[in-house]
Amino acid sequence: MKPQEMGSPAEGCVFCQIAGGRLPSIRVFEDDDFLAFMDIAPLTEGHFLLATRAHYATLLEMPGGLLARALPLAEKLARAALAGLAVPAFNLLQNNGEAAGQAVPHWHLHVIPRRRPGELGLAPGTPADMTRLPLTAEKIRLHLK
Amino acid sequence: MKPQEMGSPAEGCVFCQIAGGRLPSIRVFEDDDFLAFMDIAPLTEGHFLLATRAHYATLLEMPGGLLARALPLAEKLARAALAGLAVPAFNLLQNNGEAAGQAVPHWHLHVIPRRRPGELGLAPGTPADMTRLPLTAEKIRLHLK
Repeated sequence: MKPQEMGSPAEGCVFCQIAGGRLPSIRVFEDDDFLAFMDIAPLTEGHFLLATRAHYATLLEMPGGLLARALPLAEKLARAALAGLAVPAFNLLQNNGEAAGQAVPHWHLHVIPRRRPGELGLAPGTPADMTRLPLTAEKIRLHLK
Repeated sequence: MKPQEMGSPAEGCVFCQIAGGRLPSIRVFEDDDFLAFMDIAPLTEGHFLLATRAHYATLLEMPGGLLARALPLAEKLARAALAGLAVPAFNLLQNNGEAAGQAVPHWHLHVIPRRRPGELGLAPGTPADMTRLPLTAEKIRLHLK
C-alpha cells in the first residue's frame, strides 16, 4: 500500500467522494479549490462546511495559497448566511485531529449560524493558573519558526 | 459621541488595551498586524488567542489583507503549540457576535490544544431535516455576491 500523497484523493474519504460528485451533497458554493455544503448533522439550522476540494487531512497539511484563501471565503459565505437566514451571529470552528473531535480527516471549516447564546455547549473556561501560564507560552514560543 | 471607526482603538476595549500595552498579557507572538497571547480563562492548557492589533469587532469588519494573513499565521502558531506542548490535536474557534458567545467584541481566534476527545463540551449535531436542508442552502446561495 503506497502512502497517501497530500492533496490526492484518499480512498474511502467521504469528503473526497462529495467533492468528486460520487456522494450527494447540498452545495452552497464551489470553485476550483473549495466547496461549501450543508452539514447533515447540523449544530444549528444553517450549519454548513467549507472544505478543500483536494484531500488535506488537517490545517497543517494545507498549502499556503489555500490557507490564505480560506478565511476570506469563509467571511463571504458567513455574510451570505447571516443575510439569507436573518441570523445575527456565527461561529467558525475548525477541528484538527481525532483528539480535537475531527470526524472526517479531510480539512473542513464549520460555519455555524447562531441565534442566541447558550445554544451550543462549549463550556466557558476556568481561570488559569497564572504561575504556569508564562511557562506554557514559552514552550510555544520556542517552537515558532 | 462620534461613531467608532473600523480599525481605530475602541474605548474600553480590553484587547485594544492589551495590544497597546496598557493591560498586561502573556504573549506568544506579535507583529505589526496581529498579536497572540494566552487566554487567562483557558478551555484547555495552552489555549491562546490570535487577535488583530487594530480594532475590528468581527470577521465581517476585517480588511481583506488581514483575512488572508490570519489563517496562515494561525497554522504557524498551532504547529508551534503542538510541538511545544507535545499535543496531538487542536481546534480553531472564532466567535462573531454576542449570540455566538463572543465575549470581547474585538476580532480574535481561539487556538485550543487538545489532548483527548470529549475534553470540551461541543454537542454533537443531530440529523438534519432533509426536506428543509435544500431550502436553507438556497437562502444562503441567494445572498452570495
